[in-house]
Amino acid sequence: MGNIFSDRISDVPRSFIRDILKVTLDDSIISFAGGMPNRDLFPVEELSAATGRLFAESGRDILQYSSSEGYPALREWIAARYKATKNIDVHPDNILITSGSQQGLDLLGKTFLNEEDEVAIEEPGYLGAIQAFSVYKTRFHPVPVDMAGADTGALQRALSGSRVKLFYCVPNFQNPSGISYCLENRREIAALIQGKDTLLIEDDPYGELRFMGAGKPSFRQLLPHKTVLLGSFSKIVAPSFRIGWLVAGDEIMEKLVIAKQASDLHTNYFGQRVIFQYLKDNDIDAHIEKIRTAYGRQRDAMVSAIEEHFPEEVTYTRPEGGMFLWIALPGGLSAMEVFKRAIVRKVAFVPGDPFYVNRKDVNTLRLNYSSVDEETIRTGIKRLGDVLKEMLHRAAP
Amino acid sequence: MGNIFSDRISDVPRSFIRDILKVTLDDSIISFAGGMPNRDLFPVEELSAATGRLFAESGRDILQYSSSEGYPALREWIAARYKATKNIDVHPDNILITSGSQQGLDLLGKTFLNEEDEVAIEEPGYLGAIQAFSVYKTRFHPVPVDMAGADTGALQRALSGSRVKLFYCVPNFQNPSGISYCLENRREIAALIQGKDTLLIEDDPYGELRFMGAGKPSFRQLLPHKTVLLGSFSKIVAPSFRIGWLVAGDEIMEKLVIAKQASDLHTNYFGQRVIFQYLKDNDIDAHIEKIRTAYGRQRDAMVSAIEEHFPEEVTYTRPEGGMFLWIALPGGLSAMEVFKRAIVRKVAFVPGDPFYVNRKDVNTLRLNYSSVDEETIRTGIKRLGDVLKEMLHRAAP
Repeated sequence: MGNIFSDRISDVPRSFIRDILKVTLDDSIISFAGGMPNRDLFPVEELSAATGRLFAESGRDILQYSSSEGYPALREWIAARYKATKNIDVHPDNILITSGSQQGLDLLGKTFLNEEDEVAIEEPGYLGAIQAFSVYKTRFHPVPVDMAGADTGALQRALSGSRVKLFYCVPNFQNPSGISYCLENRREIAALIQGKDTLLIEDDPYGELRFMGAGKPSFRQLLPHKTVLLGSFSKIVAPSFRIGWLVAGDEIMEKLVIAKQASDLHTNYFGQRVIFQYLKDNDIDAHIEKIRTAYGRQRDAMVSAIEEHFPEEVTYTRPEGGMFLWIALPGGLSAMEVFKRAIVRKVAFVPGDPFYVNRKDVNTLRLNYSSVDEETIRTGIKRLGDVLKEMLHRAAP
Repeated sequence: MGNIFSDRISDVPRSFIRDILKVTLDDSIISFAGGMPNRDLFPVEELSAATGRLFAESGRDILQYSSSEGYPALREWIAARYKATKNIDVHPDNILITSGSQQGLDLLGKTFLNEEDEVAIEEPGYLGAIQAFSVYKTRFHPVPVDMAGADTGALQRALSGSRVKLFYCVPNFQNPSGISYCLENRREIAALIQGKDTLLIEDDPYGELRFMGAGKPSFRQLLPHKTVLLGSFSKIVAPSFRIGWLVAGDEIMEKLVIAKQASDLHTNYFGQRVIFQYLKDNDIDAHIEKIRTAYGRQRDAMVSAIEEHFPEEVTYTRPEGGMFLWIALPGGLSAMEVFKRAIVRKVAFVPGDPFYVNRKDVNTLRLNYSSVDEETIRTGIKRLGDVLKEMLHRAAP
């Protein structure tokens, strides 16, 4: 047969991270490459009890087909939590349960993006968003992020030059960089988007995982009519259920439900019921507090080990929450080259390349601390520091 | 804001069936409109026991992120079952776990269809496939089906006039018609596709639910290198897990995995583990036999009631398995008009319209018997027969 594939699928790169994760299956390698929550914190007993109760009380109700929008009680729970924790008013009808946040991104691509439509996206940006939107053959405008947030000058240029349909951002503890947008930066971005034919997509899977500093308002508060907000249970309960959600206005919701139906009819209802029963029977705030404390300690262990073992020329972010920390090497040092040597020394990370839409051989890299214990973090960072020192030493005249 | 939606989503009709199902939420209405398995047959105790064992033995392993391809042991089970029940050789690497068969269709659309690419599809055809492929702005070639299978003349014309990338069919107990392709028809179709740049998509959610007649070979046997085969646990275990699968060759699988990652990373792993544990601990053949026996009786009850209560001019299919039966009214009688009167008499069904890509006010309709007990079937068919007699009588000169 001739080439039978669609153009769109030929444009989407196979996930580099998948290949890296295969390398790190070797147990002797200390891996900072993953993006997984700490499995020791999963509420196994509580989920088991919730599932047992559900089978006993609701029998066959939890096994049938269900509605595309999602389980009503779970949508009500999410709305009530937005009100309680952030004073955000969301009607449950404006919440769509998705098969993980990743599906939220796919549905947004389906619903908004014609070929060649333009999307502004953080640089570095979340790989899963780059993949999801690439499928719809979008044109990306990278908007650099720094310690204060997104570069508003770059965003303004992107918005004024042409019609950008979506601006995608992760303002809290960004993946991959770990940075958070400051309040002033959020206000400036909201003001820039306000007058434009552009929607802001606020992806917030890590927002609940703040272990230091003060919370910032959501774009849903600063720009209520033009923000689509995404959330997830993957980081606060467990990822294997693949249950996330999306908050959008009535008109957008109607289109998203059509896209949802065509994509998978509805998100697995059994899992929705288990998650809801767990939330109903347990103190989720106490559970989240445990995660925050543990990740805060793991982050501190990584920051101190970096201070002790990395060459001074290496810079890094100091996240106030979430799961990732971002490293910038001295100019000219390729993170991919470092990766190759690091693997030999039994330590892994993700080189920055896949987080950029059109740059290669960058000098940045991502470290994950959530899935590695403190002692292993110290050992791994020392190994990585040794590699960096050797390479920088060798590179010196 | 101006119109911000993509062209593709404007073209996909909101599911008419969803609206119908809302009408039928009224408990006093006997509904043949659904497409659901019989909830009384769900293996509640067994799934509960499997889940309990899984939590006890595998703890946190069932709660983490997993691979895009799906749980290896479940893929091996599916491959072994194809070998045992149909003597089909499939390597587990060629099986992709999907979030229901519906997602399989979406992934195929993503992977193969450029805008204006052409798809041959049964007429009447599965509504979910029409929706999934419509999202990718495909051009449809309807291929009529009758009691023997798909119209090979129409298929040949579709294939010779232009490049049809996919032929989508449900050869066993088709949704909506209940018909099955005879062996001769399957061979002719395989021969037609063989020489063309076309893939055959065999969607087989009901194949295990044969309650009479002899099984026929899969297109995977007749046309092994050009068939993509879809299957599902929704009809043999339970739908709420949203777990289906897709069988394809190496090259196609590689592209599908990229599309899968971009769509939802992976299918809910918790559910995959529960289904696998259930399959491992129980006799699935005995369970399927129970479903077959029940559906066979429900089908018989519907056929006899139709014989007794419907006007002679009405014709209908006699399915050998599955969940649906298809009615053709005398020409000129609109199924939509019948629907409006039937609702008043507290009986519902799906008028044929949504199963056609470009016809309206058709004289056909779909009846579901799997989710209604035998006595209710007799009462409902009598009511519907009364409506039909009145309308035909009134229409007569």
